[in-house]
Formats: sequence, structure tokens, C-alpha cells
Amino acid sequence: MSKSTDELFKNVISHAKEYGFVFQSSEIYDGLSAVYDYGQFGSELKNNIKTYWWKAMVQMHENIVGIDSAIFMHPKIWKASGHVDGFSDPMIDNKDSKKRYRADQLLEDKIARYDKDGKTDKAEELQIEMDTALKNEDLARLKELILEHEIADPVSGTRNWTDVRQFNLMFSTQMGAVADDADVVYLRPETAQGIFVNYLNVQKSGRMKIPFGIAQIGKAFRNEVIARQFIIRMREFEQMEMQYFVRPGTQKEWFNKWKETRLKWHLALGTDAAKYRYHEHTKLAHYADAAYDIEFDFPFGFKEVEGIHSRTDFDLSQHQKFSGKKMQYFDPEIDQATEKPYGNYIPYVIETSIGLDRMFLLTMINAFEEEDLSTEEKQDSRTVLKLHPCLAPVKAAIFPLIKKDGLPEKAREIMDKLKLDFNLQYEEKDAIGKRYRRQDAIGTPFCITVDHQTLEDDTVTIRYRDTMQQERVNAADLEKIIGDQVSWKNLLG
Amino acid sequence: MSKSTDELFKNVISHAKEYGFVFQSSEIYDGLSAVYDYGQFGSELKNNIKTYWWKAMVQMHENIVGIDSAIFMHPKIWKASGHVDGFSDPMIDNKDSKKRYRADQLLEDKIARYDKDGKTDKAEELQIEMDTALKNEDLARLKELILEHEIADPVSGTRNWTDVRQFNLMFSTQMGAVADDADVVYLRPETAQGIFVNYLNVQKSGRMKIPFGIAQIGKAFRNEVIARQFIIRMREFEQMEMQYFVRPGTQKEWFNKWKETRLKWHLALGTDAAKYRYHEHTKLAHYADAAYDIEFDFPFGFKEVEGIHSRTDFDLSQHQKFSGKKMQYFDPEIDQATEKPYGNYIPYVIETSIGLDRMFLLTMINAFEEEDLSTEEKQDSRTVLKLHPCLAPVKAAIFPLIKKDGLPEKAREIMDKLKLDFNLQYEEKDAIGKRYRRQDAIGTPFCITVDHQTLEDDTVTIRYRDTMQQERVNAADLEKIIGDQVSWKNLLG
Repeated sequence: MSKSTDELFKNVISHAKEYGFVFQSSEIYDGLSAVYDYGQFGSELKNNIKTYWWKAMVQMHENIVGIDSAIFMHPKIWKASGHVDGFSDPMIDNKDSKKRYRADQLLEDKIARYDKDGKTDKAEELQIEMDTALKNEDLARLKELILEHEIADPVSGTRNWTDVRQFNLMFSTQMGAVADDADVVYLRPETAQGIFVNYLNVQKSGRMKIPFGIAQIGKAFRNEVIARQFIIRMREFEQMEMQYFVRPGTQKEWFNKWKETRLKWHLALGTDAAKYRYHEHTKLAHYADAAYDIEFDFPFGFKEVEGIHSRTDFDLSQHQKFSGKKMQYFDPEIDQATEKPYGNYIPYVIETSIGLDRMFLLTMINAFEEEDLSTEEKQDSRTVLKLHPCLAPVKAAIFPLIKKDGLPEKAREIMDKLKLDFNLQYEEKDAIGKRYRRQDAIGTPFCITVDHQTLEDDTVTIRYRDTMQQERVNAADLEKIIGDQVSWKNLLG
Repeated sequence: MSKSTDELFKNVISHAKEYGFVFQSSEIYDGLSAVYDYGQFGSELKNNIKTYWWKAMVQMHENIVGIDSAIFMHPKIWKASGHVDGFSDPMIDNKDSKKRYRADQLLEDKIARYDKDGKTDKAEELQIEMDTALKNEDLARLKELILEHEIADPVSGTRNWTDVRQFNLMFSTQMGAVADDADVVYLRPETAQGIFVNYLNVQKSGRMKIPFGIAQIGKAFRNEVIARQFIIRMREFEQMEMQYFVRPGTQKEWFNKWKETRLKWHLALGTDAAKYRYHEHTKLAHYADAAYDIEFDFPFGFKEVEGIHSRTDFDLSQHQKFSGKKMQYFDPEIDQATEKPYGNYIPYVIETSIGLDRMFLLTMINAFEEEDLSTEEKQDSRTVLKLHPCLAPVKAAIFPLIKKDGLPEKAREIMDKLKLDFNLQYEEKDAIGKRYRRQDAIGTPFCITVDHQTLEDDTVTIRYRDTMQQERVNAADLEKIIGDQVSWKNLLG
């Protein structure tokens, strides 16, 4: 049952909605653009992904701890980080269509058009002029170029443009009730800065020694101009970030280590390695001395899931400068070269930053299968989410074969023994086959059926999601059978 | 070592900072008012409280599921819920001091003054006039009363007042980049509405039958005029809410059930029952037909930790009205009275709503003890967090007695076998006694010391936090010893 990738993506989206994984936000009010809610199975899957990351990063590493910093932060932090001045795009509005465009994008389109039309000279000239204007942040010049090259709005067809303005991607709000004390605060556009400004508090109160890491899972917000592709680019999203503080000069070694460690984390889930690739940044951000993305082969092409960045001492140095507080760490270890302690320095930082929502989508896409089960006698198929058992929202479903003869009571008795350890579902409606299919659709690895024989010998039928095989086992063995499969040892051991 | 409650509170706050539980947000920038960050042990403790709630509410209840809805929601939702019009206070500014006050608070103070001065008639008259103005939302009249009664700003001493304006407690921001499409959106002031607007999506995709519940943990935001008392009243905070959808007419019965169930959840942690009490609301919110708070005896008096509210069908009806979408549930069960199915209705809702940050603070306060360990020979004391083992951030600490003779390697070998199941710490610095005290201060229930004898017979010393007793046990038994104590069975079984 080969599907086009486009169809696959559409099917995953509609499956996610139909089975309670992802709903459009505020759907009954016709939705809120680029914002989504996680439903009953989606929230469990998302929580399991978080747990996998947290255990792998924090619990399994002696020298990594977690924090949970607030979304609201002091506005100066975003000045220091460069977000107030630099986290923006030059935008221009057409007064007739009321549409807004990125000014540089309009010019890029024009350059491409010149090239296509063989006007190579004009293309080159415009490219140079645009680059100069962008470098000088000369917004007036950008507008001039748009007018000089007679660029029209593709919607209205007119050249009735406003001035070019910088549009910052941070959401802002007013905090404080006292009249003159109301400050503009931003919703954080990344969780990383919450780690940087707390690094000394954590280091001191936790007596951490370099190298050490601080991890955090949390919401971040960006007022994306063009938000699209389902939960790939949202205005409200969640990040799982870890900042690893190292001695200057050792950053290359740690960068390589984390690059490998993080890819292994992805592959441990059993994903085909061919679906992942590294992408090296050739154009580095102002704070970075090396950067790789881990990309996944989404139905619409390879896209970043996680970034590993060597951020140097940029952020900590900026905070030292803007806050006036020393951000130095004292390293008592002896430098073999000088035979003296390394002493005071601002640590270098390796960052691993993964988009939780993208990881969620990737997991859904990977797991989603439409299997043809047709035989010579009849056509049949099923939709199954082959989620790793550790990530499956529901670990097992318990079914009484029929709704009488004491089978529901027996099923619940078995369930009561297991439900503290595993997230379970109880279902008694419809034929067993139908119930199997519903559990397949949400990725439940085990279905357990209680029948009349159970009342006699305490055995049940266990049915495996992926193979659809069934087997008769002792009810007393269920805890071990399920436990072995859903144990984090399988991913982290 | 009896301490005044005020001192207790101060000590808990400074302990929380010193040991990495709670930091002031943006501390290096001199802080952000009424916003806090959770440090390395605070974030673990907070996560454990969340897990306890989630397991108790979702995992242990067949008919309760969780969701994770976004902070951003369609602005009409807050119109429907009453927050746009009603979630505000009448404020007035003094032009000289630039201070802002609640107009009704200024008048209340004046009334109290009249009473004190024996001017009972004036007090009564002003009370009536103020009540009328508030009822009619007559802001101009409120200002007139302030002027007529010559109320002066306690700071500037002047009567140079602005007009009275409604000040809404919701934070707002602009969403969307396209010029005319930028909408005002609010940061949700409660998580409950995210459940209401998704209730049909969840009910249908999850095939839920009444009664059923939807639970959610998430951030909420309120621009509090007076934010205070550490993490008791923050501008950014976290809620754990569950909405239970029931058949109209059965709400009283379910209200009583949840009132009891929730108090049991608190008491299962071993807290002295005398520290809790119910508080019945006599003045009910417009949407409620019954409401109780569960209050805890904080050092500054009894304060709400959790609310149990019978919200009627108010919210769902409002969303039906404002969205134009049917919010009805079809109940196929047979009504004994009419012998027909109950049919279509808008469910009634019982809400349980707990402030996670308050629960966190309560847990810290309850656990905090300064024990006098003085003997005749010497004065001694320790600070210990007697946290329930299920909630303790670190379950066990592993110490090699000394930093040589292969003891660190042996300690790490033992640690490696346990760390997948438990959050552990490894410490080799300082004398064992000092290490014990550090672990006491963060509430670690077990300290395990590896010494020379361990190399011979694989036994270790285990030291218990609360009794400070030590015992020699087989290393192979540690998994069971720790596991038994930190098992969720102790709280949920």
C-alpha cells in the first residue's frame, strides 16, 4: 500500500485528530493560527518523549541537572542575548492588499526573475545593493530598491508600499499594575537564556564542577510571519535544551561528543538510520564557532529536529556585560602545562536543543503504517501506530470477551493489579477484532482478553500489536511481560 | 528548637535558594517581580508532585484522561468565560505619587476609619453608596465618592487622582505578522477553559461516557496588582486542574465525592490532618452552585491550596452561545423515571483545581525541620527536609568512604546498576558526616556508603534520613530497599 509522501503527511494529520493526539487550538472558534492542543493520547505520548529525554540527559548523567525557569524574564536579558535588536525581519506592507512581506524576500524573488530572464547583470547588481543595505540595516534603501525595481505585490498587483520596518519575532506584554512601573516583558523565544542566567546559582548551590550541564524542558514563543506545516512551525512550542559548560579550548571535543550522543538517542528508538542526517551550518550565528543540525526525513523533505551548537562564551559574557555581575567559574584543577590551577574563566558552552513538537511529529510519522491484511477471501487493512513501547500512550488494553458471566469483573480485577505500574485502558464494547483495531490506531503494544477459561485457570490471551500474534499466558505473568517491553532499560540500558 | 512561624517561613525561603530549590527569576538582573525559577532540586520535586497528581487523577481513574492545551487561545474564549469583562479591578492612580490603588479598597479603608472614629452613620452611608456604584459598574461615581470623602493617597498625601478605570488581570499580546490581521490574544489566566473548548473532541475521539474527567497541568498568568509571599501569588504560575463532566442533577453527589477524594490525596502524604481544613464559599462565583476550598495552615495563616467547584453548565453553555457550536452530549442510558434515554444535554461540571506552586511551598514547609542533635558533650543540629520518599528529588546518594583504594570505582559500579530506576547522586568530597548533612538538606531518604568491606563481601552501609540509623546490607538488596520506599504504591496503592 504505497502512498505518496504528501498523502502520508495528510493521513498522519487526520489520524492525529481522529484519535485524540493533536487538535487544532480553539477549534470550536474556528481555530487559532499556528497553535495546537495535545489530546488525551497526544499528551501521554508527549510526556513519554519528555521522560525519555529527561532520563537520558539528567538521570543518566551524574553531572547534568535540570531546572524549570519561568517564561517571563527580565527584559534586559533579551537585550544581552541579541534578541531585542537582532531577532527580527525587515517587513513591508502593501497598502492595497494589506499583506505584509519580508522585504529581502521580495528582492530575492526579483533577483531570481532577472536571472531567469537572462538579465544577469541586473541580478548581480541588485544582489550587491541588497546585501549592502541589509548589512548596514538601511531599511530606507531596501524600500528604494523595491520601488526602483518596480516590484509589485503579487496579490494586489500594485506598488503602493509602506516603509520597511523591522518586525521582531518576540511576543511582548505589559507587566505590573502600578502606573509607571508597567514594563514591557517578552515571552521567551528560547529556553536557553533561562539556563544561562541561572548557571551560577545552580553551579554554586549544586557544587557542580566543570564540565557540567543544565537541562530544561519548556515552552517558547515566536510570532512567526509564516507559520505552517502543522506542528512543525508553531507560534507556541516546546523545547528540550541542555547547555553543557566546558573549559575553554575543550569545546571541539565536547561538541563532537554531544553530536554523536544525541544522534544515538534518536536511533535508539529503532528508527531507520537512513532517515537521519547531519547538516553542518556553513553560515554560523554570531555566537557560534560550530553548529550541526540533526535532520529527519519528513514527508516534505529533510528538516531540522535538533541543533548542536558550540556557543562559545558569548551568552555568559553578554550577561556579565549587561548585568554587571561576574559570570566566572573558578576551576581548581591543575593545568598540566603551567602546573597551576586553571583558575577563573567564563566557561564555553555546547548546546543541544531539540524541538519537542517536531520530535512528536517525527515519532507519529515513523510509527504510522497502513497495512494491507487482505487475503484471497477478503480485503482488509489496518492503521497501526508502531510506537516504541516506552513511548506508547497506553501500554495495554484489557478486554472482557463479553459483557457478562463475571468477565468484566475478572478483567477489572486483573486491571487493578496492573494499573499502578502501567497506563491501561479498559474496553468492553464491540467485537474483540474491532477493539484490537482501535488499540492499533493509538499504538497500544498489548491487548489482553479475559474469557471463560480465565475464570477457571487464570490464563488470558495476550495479543501483540506488531505481529498480531496471540498467545495464552498466566495472568500472573502479565506484569513481567508488559514490564519487560516498556522498561526504560530498552532505551537507556 | 521552637521557631516563630515567621522565622520558619523566612528559613524555608532561604533554604530553598541555598539548596537549589527556588531562585528569584532573573536574579542577576535584580529580579523580576513575582516570578520565580525552580532550580535543580526544585524542578525534580515539582515534577514528582506533578507525577503524583497525574497518576492519582489520570492513571488510576479509568474514566479520566489528560490533555495539554496551549497557553494561547482564541480571544473569544475569554469573552465567553467572562474574563474579558469581569476579570478586573477598578483602579485609580495618584498623579503625584504615581501609585495605583484599587478604588474599592480605598473606600473600604475610609469606611473602616469612620467606624473606628464612631461615625457609624457616615460609614453605613458610604458603604451603601459604594456597593451601589460597584453593582452598577459606575466608575465615575467611585471617583466622586473618593473626592467627596476627601481620601488622600497614603504615599503623597495628595488628592490629585486620575479617573477610575477597570484594570484587567489578563496579560495580552499581539499575534500575527500580517498588518491588519494582528489580533490581541491573552495569556490564559486559568487552564480550565482549555479543557472546556476541547471537551467534545476528547469525548468523541476517546469515546468517553458520562461521568468522565479531563485533567491538565499547565502554566497560567495573572497580572496581579499586589504579588507577594514568595511563590504563593505569582504572575506566572502552574495549575493542576480536572474537570469532571456529569449528568445534570448528579452534581451534588459528585461534588461531595471529589471534595473528599482530593483531601485524601493531600493527607496520603502523611501531613498532619489538623493542618488542613475545608472552607466553604458563602459568596459564590456567578458560574458556581457550590464551592469549597481546601486550605493549608501556612506560617502566615490558613490559605487556599485547592478549590473544588461545582461550575454547573455555565462554561459549556457560554461556549455554545459564543461559538455557535453545539456543546451537547448524547446520553444513551435509560432514565428509570421515564424509561427513555436521558438523551441530549449540556453536562454539569465539577472542577478540582490545585495551585502547583502552592503545593510545592506547602510540601517544603511541611518537610522542613531544624533538629537539635546536641548531646552533653557538644552542641549540634541539622536541617532536614523530611519529604515523602516518593517526592524526594534525589532518592539515594552513593558515597565512597574515601577517594582511593578502588572505592570510587566500586561506588560507581553500584550506582550504575541503580541509576536507571532512581535519581541518584554521587559524592566523594568531604567527610561522610558532612555529606549526610548535605543530603538531609535536600531530603534524600537514603545515603549509601561504600567502604573497604564492600570490596570483600559486597555489603554497604545504608543510612536513613529521618532516623539517622545506619545498617549494613547487601548491595544486591538496595534496589528492593529503595524501591519499596519510593514506590508510588505507598501513595496510591
